[in-house]
Amino acid sequence: MTARLIAEIAGTFLLVFGLVGTAVFSAAFPGGDAGNPLGVGFLGVALALGLTVMIGAFAFGPISGGHFNPAVTLGLAAAGRFSWRDVIGYILAQLIGAILGATVIFALAANGPSGFLDSAVAGGFVSNGYDELSPGGFGIVAAIVIEIVITALFLYVILGVTHTRATAGFAPIAIGFTLTLLLLVAIPVDNASINPARSIATAIFGGGDWLVQLWVFIVFPIVGALIAGFSYRFLFDGLKRS
Amino acid sequence: MTARLIAEIAGTFLLVFGLVGTAVFSAAFPGGDAGNPLGVGFLGVALALGLTVMIGAFAFGPISGGHFNPAVTLGLAAAGRFSWRDVIGYILAQLIGAILGATVIFALAANGPSGFLDSAVAGGFVSNGYDELSPGGFGIVAAIVIEIVITALFLYVILGVTHTRATAGFAPIAIGFTLTLLLLVAIPVDNASINPARSIATAIFGGGDWLVQLWVFIVFPIVGALIAGFSYRFLFDGLKRS
Amino acid sequence: MTARLIAEIAGTFLLVFGLVGTAVFSAAFPGGDAGNPLGVGFLGVALALGLTVMIGAFAFGPISGGHFNPAVTLGLAAAGRFSWRDVIGYILAQLIGAILGATVIFALAANGPSGFLDSAVAGGFVSNGYDELSPGGFGIVAAIVIEIVITALFLYVILGVTHTRATAGFAPIAIGFTLTLLLLVAIPVDNASINPARSIATAIFGGGDWLVQLWVFIVFPIVGALIAGFSYRFLFDGLKRS
Amino acid sequence: MTARLIAEIAGTFLLVFGLVGTAVFSAAFPGGDAGNPLGVGFLGVALALGLTVMIGAFAFGPISGGHFNPAVTLGLAAAGRFSWRDVIGYILAQLIGAILGATVIFALAANGPSGFLDSAVAGGFVSNGYDELSPGGFGIVAAIVIEIVITALFLYVILGVTHTRATAGFAPIAIGFTLTLLLLVAIPVDNASINPARSIATAIFGGGDWLVQLWVFIVFPIVGALIAGFSYRFLFDGLKRS
Repeated sequence: MTARLIAEIAGTFLLVFGLVGTAVFSAAFPGGDAGNPLGVGFLGVALALGLTVMIGAFAFGPISGGHFNPAVTLGLAAAGRFSWRDVIGYILAQLIGAILGATVIFALAANGPSGFLDSAVAGGFVSNGYDELSPGGFGIVAAIVIEIVITALFLYVILGVTHTRATAGFAPIAIGFTLTLLLLVAIPVDNASINPARSIATAIFGGGDWLVQLWVFIVFPIVGALIAGFSYRFLFDGLKRS
Repeated sequence: MTARLIAEIAGTFLLVFGLVGTAVFSAAFPGGDAGNPLGVGFLGVALALGLTVMIGAFAFGPISGGHFNPAVTLGLAAAGRFSWRDVIGYILAQLIGAILGATVIFALAANGPSGFLDSAVAGGFVSNGYDELSPGGFGIVAAIVIEIVITALFLYVILGVTHTRATAGFAPIAIGFTLTLLLLVAIPVDNASINPARSIATAIFGGGDWLVQLWVFIVFPIVGALIAGFSYRFLFDGLKRS
Repeated sequence: MTARLIAEIAGTFLLVFGLVGTAVFSAAFPGGDAGNPLGVGFLGVALALGLTVMIGAFAFGPISGGHFNPAVTLGLAAAGRFSWRDVIGYILAQLIGAILGATVIFALAANGPSGFLDSAVAGGFVSNGYDELSPGGFGIVAAIVIEIVITALFLYVILGVTHTRATAGFAPIAIGFTLTLLLLVAIPVDNASINPARSIATAIFGGGDWLVQLWVFIVFPIVGALIAGFSYRFLFDGLKRS
Repeated sequence: MTARLIAEIAGTFLLVFGLVGTAVFSAAFPGGDAGNPLGVGFLGVALALGLTVMIGAFAFGPISGGHFNPAVTLGLAAAGRFSWRDVIGYILAQLIGAILGATVIFALAANGPSGFLDSAVAGGFVSNGYDELSPGGFGIVAAIVIEIVITALFLYVILGVTHTRATAGFAPIAIGFTLTLLLLVAIPVDNASINPARSIATAIFGGGDWLVQLWVFIVFPIVGALIAGFSYRFLFDGLKRS
């Protein structure tokens, strides 16, 4: 069990380090000018998260299964693909990894130019949010709906590509690029959680109002994952195919 | 059959949710400034559509074949790769999934900042169009030609990568990235249909003139797909290779 | 043989259609504003070319080998991987496909907004060039050096990933992304040929000075490919590995 | 042995040629305007480095293992995956390839528009740096921490995806995209070394203060790689999995 938990810590560290690092350092890099922007924007952030999970799943998947996300662990358990007994250990490992990842980015930002860390924290340190904390000004209903929908879609893809009928080996590519796609849609709405561990790790550093809204990004990704886990089993494992 | 139709609904939902969500929320995100644009532009939209089909094909392809597009279903039937008897059921499932996908984005946009939904609808809600409704001001001839050409190319790739002589497993990557490429070329011309279900789902919300032009984006993708389906069979299945 | 030549025509059509279409229609799309550019820039063009060859190799590679480029055909012959006897037929097919691809984009541009086609032609219609015709103002020495180097690198990758010791199936991904990388480096220098068929097809529509400089983009990609073909054989097929 | 060393020279040449070429020629291309930037920004540079290693590993990996980086060679030796005896030869080959790659870009830049080369050199010629030489103004502590962390993560991924329990064939994709991700995070901090050969090759042309800071980008990538190599062995090869 120890190696599996270390793999979950390492993978979730990589996830939060990559996502938050890209969003804090590179998304809106101030060194460019109008005709030559250097920052990577939302596309870079969406790509970064997808890549963290793709490479984490390639590297650590064979050890732990490569969840890196409490909603995934719960959804897989609901679908009958993961033991309920191991859920708590995995979630604790994911929280440790996520908080470590955000802490390293925080420490790096503290060695940045004057005012850089304060500005990143004031912006929520990549926390999720709705209303005035939504990147694009979307309300709580939109945040709830999109977290349920995108986390359910994420679990559907995971359950589909790790099914026995799928071609082995491609799962990390499919799973990683699913996150990239979902962030392309959801960053403007609520900064895209899908993953309570990621949301907790960033809200700790965002603080204040970001912590007040955090519950939405713990509860609804899990709701979406459970809906997907239970329904996938009924729809695709239970029904005849032709 | 039920599981196959549900897979087509889910995959086409994912396709329209991802494409329209990225185009409406992220393509031209207003939060950036001149030196630091955050929006994902046409590149992000093209990548989003490609990823939806790539991951949909990985996740649902083993169940339904992963068409998610009436033109694909018809083109595969023309090529002798899909039963004409199942065409109607597949197309109905695709329409349901596509309209559900656009509806979710519409509902999310309705919870956006003041004026956001009105502006998205006024812009056609990612509908296809020509003349004054073309993103780059192209006419109906360009729209007809490009829909025939890109849908035929799409079917050629699908027929090639799912042929028995192709290496199994890579088909979703090839098929998904084909859509990304075709959108890089075609978004400025007519916002790139290739898929009548996607065009119908967006035109419903675009309304007015967008509905008037919709027939072009139903008819000509299908024309392109049928040309490709019939000709592939003759050219590559019929001819000797050496 | 007929099916192989048709596959080369189709793949080279796809290559030029995708590259020139992205460059003409999407690279610098005029509809964005300073904070929200929509165009895909050089990154989109580099990605487009890579994707055309990746998907062309997936779709048509099993039929013809997927060259789509006279320099590749000649380099493979030099490396002993392709019959010198078939070279002429392949190159003719590639020229036909390339010219057809550029012609379709030309016809689409002619149905664009007023002045669009004239402006695209005045800019060379994606032709290669040096000195005042270089995108970034580079001279003929840079054009010659970079065409030799990048075409040789391209052939080295092709020869490596199609070697018997390589894992089968991944070659199209490696080969396609190689072109994306090489364009990221070379577009500013001379608009990146690597492929005489692509250069000829665009120079026909660029006309004038672009035709005068065309010889550089026929001769030096071929020089690079032949150097790579002959040297690969000596270095990696001839030498002991340990 | 000769073929292996030539493969390391060729792969590291490709790495530096692609990374430095993209950064110098394309990252901030001056030909765009505010609404239509053409340059590829940090996203293009991060993608370029990832692609160089992905395609280098596909093409030359079967010959030499595809290190292209002294830190990788040392980390693999520490993990017991590479013979300590061959380390010196590999590192020399990597240095030769890296310096050749930077030299070709230097020569091309010398044939660029007036002042182009001077400006590229004044900007450090893509060298790594901290304090006033950091792209985003980060200090030496941030540079040291990030080089240790990202090089360790890189080695963890390499060790994971080349483990016997991993699916063969996907390693180059995972390894290449890991570099893309790490650069998305680290370019603003210190221009992202991870690779002492790359840092040496660019500092030679950057000169002056860039050479003074070079030791940081030789020492700490190696520290990170050695930590990862030794710890991976203990954590994942040594511990029981369940």
